[in-house]
Amino acid sequence: MIRQATPTNHSLLQPRDSFARRHNGPTIADVAYMLESLGLNSLEELVQTAVPDTIRLQGQFNIPAGLGEAAALADMRQLASQNKVYRSYIGMGYSDTVTPPVILRNILEHPGWYTAYTPYQAEIAQGRLEALLNYQTMITDLTGLEIANASLLDEGTAAAEAMTLCQRALPRKSKANTFFVSELCHPQTIDVVQTRAEPLGIEVIVGDHNSYDFSHETFGVLLQYPATDGTILDYAPFAAKAHEAGALVVVAADLLALTLLRAPGEFGADVAVGNSQRFGVPMGYGGPHAAYMATQERYQRIMPGRLIGVSKDATGEQALRMALQTREQHIRRDKATSNICTAQVLLAVIASMYAVYHGPDGLREIAQRVRLLTAVLAQALQNGGYTTNDGPTFDTLKISGGGKGQAELIEAALSHQINLRRYDDGAVGVSLDEATQISDLQELLAVFGVTADVDALADGVALDYDATHNRSSDYLTHPVFNSYHSETEMLRYIYKLQSRDLSLVHSMIPLGSCTMKLNATTEMIPVTWPEFGKLHPFVPLDQAAGYQEMFRRLEGWLAEVTGFTAVSLQPNAGSQGEYAGLLTIRHYHAAHGNGHRNICLIPSSAHGTNPASAVMAGMQVVVVECDHDGNIEVDDLRRKAEQYRDNLAALMVTYPSTHGVFEASIREICQIIHANGGQVYLDGANMNAQVGLCRPGDYGADVCHLNLHKTFCIPHGGGGPGMGPIGVQAHLAPFLPGHAVVAGVGGTGAVSAAPWGSASILPISYAYIAMMGGDGLQQATQMAILNANYIAKRLDPYYPVLYKGEHGFVAHECILDLRPLKDSSGIGAEDVAKRLMDFGFHAPTMSFPVPGTLMVEPTESESLAELERFCQAMIAIREEIAAVERGEIDRENNPLRNAPHTAAVVTSSEWKRPYSREQAAYPLSWVRDAKFWPAVSRIDNVYGDRNLFCICPPMETYQ
Amino acid sequence: MIRQATPTNHSLLQPRDSFARRHNGPTIADVAYMLESLGLNSLEELVQTAVPDTIRLQGQFNIPAGLGEAAALADMRQLASQNKVYRSYIGMGYSDTVTPPVILRNILEHPGWYTAYTPYQAEIAQGRLEALLNYQTMITDLTGLEIANASLLDEGTAAAEAMTLCQRALPRKSKANTFFVSELCHPQTIDVVQTRAEPLGIEVIVGDHNSYDFSHETFGVLLQYPATDGTILDYAPFAAKAHEAGALVVVAADLLALTLLRAPGEFGADVAVGNSQRFGVPMGYGGPHAAYMATQERYQRIMPGRLIGVSKDATGEQALRMALQTREQHIRRDKATSNICTAQVLLAVIASMYAVYHGPDGLREIAQRVRLLTAVLAQALQNGGYTTNDGPTFDTLKISGGGKGQAELIEAALSHQINLRRYDDGAVGVSLDEATQISDLQELLAVFGVTADVDALADGVALDYDATHNRSSDYLTHPVFNSYHSETEMLRYIYKLQSRDLSLVHSMIPLGSCTMKLNATTEMIPVTWPEFGKLHPFVPLDQAAGYQEMFRRLEGWLAEVTGFTAVSLQPNAGSQGEYAGLLTIRHYHAAHGNGHRNICLIPSSAHGTNPASAVMAGMQVVVVECDHDGNIEVDDLRRKAEQYRDNLAALMVTYPSTHGVFEASIREICQIIHANGGQVYLDGANMNAQVGLCRPGDYGADVCHLNLHKTFCIPHGGGGPGMGPIGVQAHLAPFLPGHAVVAGVGGTGAVSAAPWGSASILPISYAYIAMMGGDGLQQATQMAILNANYIAKRLDPYYPVLYKGEHGFVAHECILDLRPLKDSSGIGAEDVAKRLMDFGFHAPTMSFPVPGTLMVEPTESESLAELERFCQAMIAIREEIAAVERGEIDRENNPLRNAPHTAAVVTSSEWKRPYSREQAAYPLSWVRDAKFWPAVSRIDNVYGDRNLFCICPPMETYQ
Repeated sequence: MIRQATPTNHSLLQPRDSFARRHNGPTIADVAYMLESLGLNSLEELVQTAVPDTIRLQGQFNIPAGLGEAAALADMRQLASQNKVYRSYIGMGYSDTVTPPVILRNILEHPGWYTAYTPYQAEIAQGRLEALLNYQTMITDLTGLEIANASLLDEGTAAAEAMTLCQRALPRKSKANTFFVSELCHPQTIDVVQTRAEPLGIEVIVGDHNSYDFSHETFGVLLQYPATDGTILDYAPFAAKAHEAGALVVVAADLLALTLLRAPGEFGADVAVGNSQRFGVPMGYGGPHAAYMATQERYQRIMPGRLIGVSKDATGEQALRMALQTREQHIRRDKATSNICTAQVLLAVIASMYAVYHGPDGLREIAQRVRLLTAVLAQALQNGGYTTNDGPTFDTLKISGGGKGQAELIEAALSHQINLRRYDDGAVGVSLDEATQISDLQELLAVFGVTADVDALADGVALDYDATHNRSSDYLTHPVFNSYHSETEMLRYIYKLQSRDLSLVHSMIPLGSCTMKLNATTEMIPVTWPEFGKLHPFVPLDQAAGYQEMFRRLEGWLAEVTGFTAVSLQPNAGSQGEYAGLLTIRHYHAAHGNGHRNICLIPSSAHGTNPASAVMAGMQVVVVECDHDGNIEVDDLRRKAEQYRDNLAALMVTYPSTHGVFEASIREICQIIHANGGQVYLDGANMNAQVGLCRPGDYGADVCHLNLHKTFCIPHGGGGPGMGPIGVQAHLAPFLPGHAVVAGVGGTGAVSAAPWGSASILPISYAYIAMMGGDGLQQATQMAILNANYIAKRLDPYYPVLYKGEHGFVAHECILDLRPLKDSSGIGAEDVAKRLMDFGFHAPTMSFPVPGTLMVEPTESESLAELERFCQAMIAIREEIAAVERGEIDRENNPLRNAPHTAAVVTSSEWKRPYSREQAAYPLSWVRDAKFWPAVSRIDNVYGDRNLFCICPPMETYQ
Repeated sequence: MIRQATPTNHSLLQPRDSFARRHNGPTIADVAYMLESLGLNSLEELVQTAVPDTIRLQGQFNIPAGLGEAAALADMRQLASQNKVYRSYIGMGYSDTVTPPVILRNILEHPGWYTAYTPYQAEIAQGRLEALLNYQTMITDLTGLEIANASLLDEGTAAAEAMTLCQRALPRKSKANTFFVSELCHPQTIDVVQTRAEPLGIEVIVGDHNSYDFSHETFGVLLQYPATDGTILDYAPFAAKAHEAGALVVVAADLLALTLLRAPGEFGADVAVGNSQRFGVPMGYGGPHAAYMATQERYQRIMPGRLIGVSKDATGEQALRMALQTREQHIRRDKATSNICTAQVLLAVIASMYAVYHGPDGLREIAQRVRLLTAVLAQALQNGGYTTNDGPTFDTLKISGGGKGQAELIEAALSHQINLRRYDDGAVGVSLDEATQISDLQELLAVFGVTADVDALADGVALDYDATHNRSSDYLTHPVFNSYHSETEMLRYIYKLQSRDLSLVHSMIPLGSCTMKLNATTEMIPVTWPEFGKLHPFVPLDQAAGYQEMFRRLEGWLAEVTGFTAVSLQPNAGSQGEYAGLLTIRHYHAAHGNGHRNICLIPSSAHGTNPASAVMAGMQVVVVECDHDGNIEVDDLRRKAEQYRDNLAALMVTYPSTHGVFEASIREICQIIHANGGQVYLDGANMNAQVGLCRPGDYGADVCHLNLHKTFCIPHGGGGPGMGPIGVQAHLAPFLPGHAVVAGVGGTGAVSAAPWGSASILPISYAYIAMMGGDGLQQATQMAILNANYIAKRLDPYYPVLYKGEHGFVAHECILDLRPLKDSSGIGAEDVAKRLMDFGFHAPTMSFPVPGTLMVEPTESESLAELERFCQAMIAIREEIAAVERGEIDRENNPLRNAPHTAAVVTSSEWKRPYSREQAAYPLSWVRDAKFWPAVSRIDNVYGDRNLFCICPPMETYQ
C-alpha cells in the first residue's frame, strides 16, 4: 500500500517527511477507487496484467530505501561541501558570472519558468517565446548576422552543427569534403567536431589558419574569436580566402567580447556559434548553458535547432511561435537538419534577461572592465618579466617566461585557491571575468610573484581597440534592452512574461511523449548552491569530489535501473544520448573488425530523432513495419535482419512502444537482432513505465539512453535543459564517450563540450532517486501505469483508445483516436488541443505517433482530482463535437474551431458567435476557480513561415 | 548625478553590480525630465527647496560606501558563517521545524507573496485572505474555541493582549485589578506581561496555580499548556475555580501538542494564545513568527488584532475581507482594543499552508512521533538514574539527578553541538521536535551518559494519553486541509491563491502611509539561509556571533541615520516601537523622580497608533490642533505644553507630518516640549523622506522608531512581518527594553518575546544599507521626494494637492483632495480606489489622514514610466468622473461605482451597463499588456460585519 493508515510505534520513529507520498499524486483512497474502476484488486495485479511476464524484473531491485526530504538535503549539502569553490581563471569558453539575483530567484528558482514544457502550444507560451525572441535578437545583434536560433546544447556541438550546416550549404555538384579547424579553437570543441565528423566521412584538418592553403576541397572553416589563447586576430583576410575557395566561415565567438569587438558578420563569418553562459548562467561544472548559432538568412532552412518567429493570431494580433518546424527531426526524420529536438530554453531565457537587465551600456561596461583588468594584468606581468600574447586581448592571457615553470605556477595558484589553465607547451593561461575583483587581481599577481600599482596601470590603458578590431556598430537598440534596468522594472517584466505561460503550477501537462511529472522543490534547491554552480568544468578532480561521488552513486543507480554495467553522463540531451549510444555501437563494431556494419533498423512508429541520430552515427536507416496494434511486425523485423545480416549494425527500439504498449515480443526481437550480428539500442523515452518493473539490460538491450528530464525529474525548463545519459552492457563500456581535456572519462571521442554534460542539474535526478528509494520508484511506476489506465478507461467511451496490450491495458500513456471525428464533424486533434486551453489545460501530444490522435501521459504525480478535471474537460469537448455532428452548431464557427478564447475576445463588445461568452471562457464551472487566459488567439503558423521574422519587431508594430 | 554616463578607467575597476541604480527607479534621463517639469535644475535644488534649511543635515553622513550585490552577499555569507547551527533542545516556545520546501520556495521566497501589502483592498487580496481564513480555522479547531484572529506578533505579546482582553471583558462595576500568571509559564512571556501590566496599573501575581486563592480581585489567569517544564497538567479544576472567582482563563498552548491533547476550549479556557512557529516557520533567532489568539464569540469585539471574515461581493458571491475594523486603532485611536496595527501575515500563511499540506493525519503523526521520542528519552534517562517530570509529557522533559550537575551536562551537550535548557534550580531541560532524528536521540543520550535500545523502548510506549488529557475531538476536517497533500497539488493551491493577489510584482503600490519600495532579492536571499533561520533565540551568544556582529553594525548605522546614540532592535512592529519608545520615556521620568508625568500631546493628524500606544504606556492623550495646511498649530502646542507643564511626559510627532509636508517649525516644537519638561517622541513612519537629509536626533527628538518594513526594505509580507526598532538620545539609553532570559540586552522589561525581535529579517535592512551606502541612501531620499513631487505636479490640475510646504513642494508623499468631487458627482475616494484596480493598480492610502482624500507615496523605486502609468490612470478616472458630473453617465450605474470589474462580470452574456465592456476592463490601451483581474466584485463590508463568519465556509457554500 501507499501509506501506513495507522502508523506503528516503529514506523513513527522514522522522519515524517518521506517523499514518495508527496511525489505521487493518488492517495490511498484514490488508488482503491481507480483499481476498482479498472476491475483490479491491487497495484500488483495491475502490473502483472499490464507488463508481460516474460520481462518482469525477477530479482531484487537494489536501490537503497528512500531518505526523508530533510535528510536528502543534508546528504546533498554534505556532497556539496566536498566540492571546493576556487577562483577558476581557466577560461576555454567558461567564465564566472554574476547571475543577477532578481533573475536567479524569479526564473532559475521559479517553477512557473522551470516546469513549463517546450512551447509547441504557442498560445499559452507567449512569455518565454518573447524571452527567446529577445535571445535571438541579442545573438543577431552581437554577431552581426541576420538570423539566430533559440539556442543549441553547448559550444562544441554548436560548432559540429555548424560544420554540417556548411556541408548542407554546398552546391549539389561540389565534392568538397574537408572541414578546416583552427588549432586556436578550444580543444573540447575540436574533440566534439572530430567525433561528429568521423561517422559522416568528413575529413577534419586541424592547423594554423595562416598557413592553410585550401589544397583539400574545403567546404567550411572554424575559427575561434578571440582565439583560445586570448589573442584577438583579424580573420577578415582568411575569411576572404575561404570564400574564394568556396568554403563557408564559421566563427566561434565570445558574446561578451563582441560588445567591444568587430562582429563576425562584419568580417566575413557566414555562421557564428558560441556559448551564452557568461551572460548570467552559472558554470555548473560544465552545464547546462545555452549555446547559440547565428547565420545568414539564406541558410535559415538548413539551420538546425529551434527558431522562434513572429506571426499573427486569428484576430490579426502579433503572436510568437516556433518557426520552420519542417526542418526538424520530428517531421523530416532521417532528412532532418540535425537530430536536435531540444534547446536550452531556461538558460537562453536567463542569458536574454541578463542582456535585458544590463542593456547595451551595461554590457559594454562589464566588457570594458574585464578588458581593463586583463590589460592591467598583462602589463603587470610584462613588467615582472613574463611574456604574454603577441596582439590585443580581451579577457585571456597566455603567459610564459618570468623564470617560473608551469608546475610551479599551477602549484602556487592552487595554494591561493586559484586555478590556471595549463598549456601543453608549458605556458599557463588566465581568463578574467565579470566576477573578478581588484583583490582577485592582486592575489593573482602574487601567484606570479609580481606586485603592481593597479590604479596607475589602469590609467595607462586605452579602452578602444584599433580600427581593425574595434566595434563601431550598435547593438541591442531595441526598447526591450533599454527599459528594464531597475530591479522593480525587471521583476515586473519577468512576471509579466511568466503570467502568459501555462506550466505545472497551473495544471497537468499530459504529454504522451514527455513525462511531465513533479519537479520537486527539494530536488531543485541544490542546483543553485554555489558549490554546484560555481565550478569550472575543467578544475582538478579533487576540487569536484562531491560531484564525482554523486556521479558515482547516480551512475550506479541508473545502471541498476536499466540492468546495465556502465553509464556515461556526458550526453546532454536525449538526442545526444541516442547519438552517443549509436556511436558506442559503431566503435564496438569497428573494434571487432566490423566497421562495415552500418544498417540500422528502425520501426515505423519511432520518434523522428531515431533516424536522425542514426544518420549522424553514419548508419543507413531501414524501416521495420508495425502491425495495426502498433507493435513491431516481428516477421518483417526478422526478414530485414536476415536480409541485412552482413551489414546489420543495430536496431533502435522504443519500449514500451511509442504506442504506449508493452510488447510481449521484445525479448524475441532482441534475440533476432543479436542472432544477425546487430546490437540493440533501446530508446529510453518511455522508461517511466519500466523503472523497478523491468530492465532493458535484462531483456536483451545492449545500450539505452535515459531522459533524466522525463523519467528522473529534471524539469523541462520551457524547452530545455535535458540530460540523456546512456547505459551499456559490459562489452560496450570501453567505447563510451571520452573528453579531450579531462582524462579518465571514457574511451572514445567527446559528444558534448563538458565531460559530464550538464552536471549541475544531475543533483535533481540524484535527489529524486535518493528520496524515492527502490520501493518508491517502483510505486511511482505502478502509479504512472494506474493513472494512464484510469484515463484510458474513462475516456475510451468518448475517444477510442487506439492501442492496448494483450489484456486490454495500456502502459503509462494512451492514444486517443480522434480521426473519426474529423470526418463526422470537421473537428481535428488541433481543435481539441486548442480548446483544452480554454479549460486551463495544456494539450496532450498531438498527432504523434499517429496523425489525428492525442497521446496522453498523466504520470504518477497527478492526483485523481486532476485526472478527473482533465477527463471532464475532454468529455465536455466531446459533447461540443457531438453538437457539431448533430448540426446544432456551425462546423466552422464553433467553440472548438475558434479556440482558444482570449480575454480580449470574450470581453469584446462585439460577439457574433453562435455560443455564449460563458461557453467560450468557462465551459465547466470549476474553470472559474483558477481561470488561465491564453495570451493570444489561435496562431497562424503558415503566415509566420511565409513571412519569416525572427527578431524583436520594431515598437511601432505593437499596439 | 545618478550614473556615470561615461565611466572612467578608475570607476571601471569597481564591480559593475552597484546597487543604488537597481534600487532607484528613475534613470538619468527620467530625473532630468522630472526636474525640468518641476522647474528645477538639480536634485540638490529640490532638496534645498523641499526640506527646510533649519533642519538639513550639515555635517557628514557617516555610512560607508555601498557594496556591490555580489560583495554584499559575500559579506552576509561571512556573517552567517559566524553563527553556529547547533541542535537546540531549549524549547520555551521555540522548536526546530521542517519547512516543507514547496512552501519555502513558493511562499517565503516568492515576491508574489512577500511584497504584497496588508489586504485593505480585499478584492485584489483574496488569495492571502483565504490562507488567513485557513489559519483562523486551524487555530479555532486546534484550540477548541470559536473565533481566532489572523495572528499577533509573538506569544509573549499575545499573552499580554489576552490580559487586557480579560480586563476589557470585566463587568463595568468590577474593580478586579489582578492578573494571575502561573509560574509554569515561559519566563519571557511573564516578562512581557509584567512590562505591559505596570503602566496600566495592573497587579500581576506570579505563582503556583494550585495554591492561588483568588484573594486578590482577579480578572484573569494565564496558564501554560503543556507547562514550560513539559508537564501536561489538568487545568480544568483550576479553570472552574477561576470562573467562580469571576476571572477569565487564558491558556498559552502549544499548537502541535493540541493535535493530541484535550483542547483548551474543552477544559475551560476563555482565551488561548501561542506561537505557530513550529508549523514550518524557521526559529530565526527569535522571529518573525505568527502568534495566535482564539477566544469565544462573545469577545469578538474586544479581541485585538486583525480578523478575516467571510462576506459577499456586489454580485452576491462569497468574498473575504478584514472584519470588524472598527475595533482597530486606526479608527478607535486611544479607545482601540490594542495599538496593534499589523499581523504576521506571511508567517501565518506559512503555518496555515503547513497544516494544509500535512492535514490532520499528518500533523497527528508528527505530534505522535515527537511524543514517542520524548517518551523513549524519558524512559532511557530514568533507566539511567535520572529524574524526569512527574506527570505526562509531550515534547519537553525537565531532568535532574543522575549524578551529573547542570554545568557538566550543559558542557557535555555543547561538546556535541547541542543546547539544553538551563533551569535556575539546577535541572536541565530538553524539548524535542519534528526535526529530531533517531541519531539525534542517541547523541542526546550520550550527553547524559546513557545508552538505550530505542526500538525496544519505543515498543513499550502507549501513544494515547489517559482520558483526562487525550484529545477526542476532531480537527481540520474542512476539505482544504484534506485535499493538497501531494507536492503537485500543494504547488497549484499556492499558485492559485497567489494569482488572486496584486503585489509589487505587478505594479506600483503607492501607499502614502506605507512606503512600498523595492524588496531586493539580494536583501531577501540570506533570510532563508539555515545559519540565520535555524538559531534558537536563547542560544549562548557565542553561537550567534554573526548575528551579534550584524546587530552591532546595523544599530550603528541606524543611530547614524537618526542622529541618536543607542538603538534597540527588540520591538517587532512599528506599534511596538511606539510603545517601547514611550516606555523608555516613562522609565526615564520615573528614574528622575517624575513618575507623575503622564500627559502625552498628540497632533490631531497623527496615526491612530500613536494615541493607542500612549494609552498602553500609561499616558493620557491631549490632542494638539493642526492648521489648514496640516501643520501643528504651534501656538496651541505651546499653550497645552504650558498648561500641562507639571505633568507633561511627551509629545508624539510624525515628521514629515502625516500630511506629507516638512514643517519648518519642528525645531521650535521640540524646544517647547523640552522647556516644559517633556520628551519628544518622533514617529519614524516618514523616515523615507529624511534619510541622509535630516536627522531627528539633530533637530530635537529624544526617541524615534523606525519602520524597517517601510524605510529599510523589509517586505510587507501581505500584512506583516514588520520591525520597529527605536533610537534614543544618550539619556534614554539606560531605559531600553531588556529580556528575562538573555542578559545584557537592555535595562528594563521586555516588550517582545525575543531579545532582538524578529532577528531573521534584519539581514534585509542590513543588506540594504550595506549596498546603498551613504550616498545611495541620500540619493534614494532625493528620488523619493522627486517622484512624489512629480506626481503632485502632474495630478494637481485634476485632483488638487491638499498640503504643500512653503515653496510649494511636498515631501515624499502627497494628498489628493477628492472631496469636491463627491459633491459634484457622488464619486468618492473609495470608488476611485476600486476603479484603480481595473487599471491594475492598488489604491493609495484612502481617507487618511483626511477623510475623502487619497495619499500617494510612490517611493524612489518606481520608474518614470510607472509613475506615468499611474498618473494616466488617475487622469482617465478623472475624465470618467467628469462625465458623471456632466450628466453624460448615470451617477450610480457607472464604471466607478461598479468597480472593480471581474472577468466573470465582463464576460457575462448579460451586460446592461451604460458603458462598454472594454471601458470596464481595459480603460486604457496599455492595460491589455498585463491585465490583472480582481477576483471578486466590490465587497460588502457591512454585510460581513453584521453576519460575522470567520472560519472556512462549508464546501456547499461554494459554487
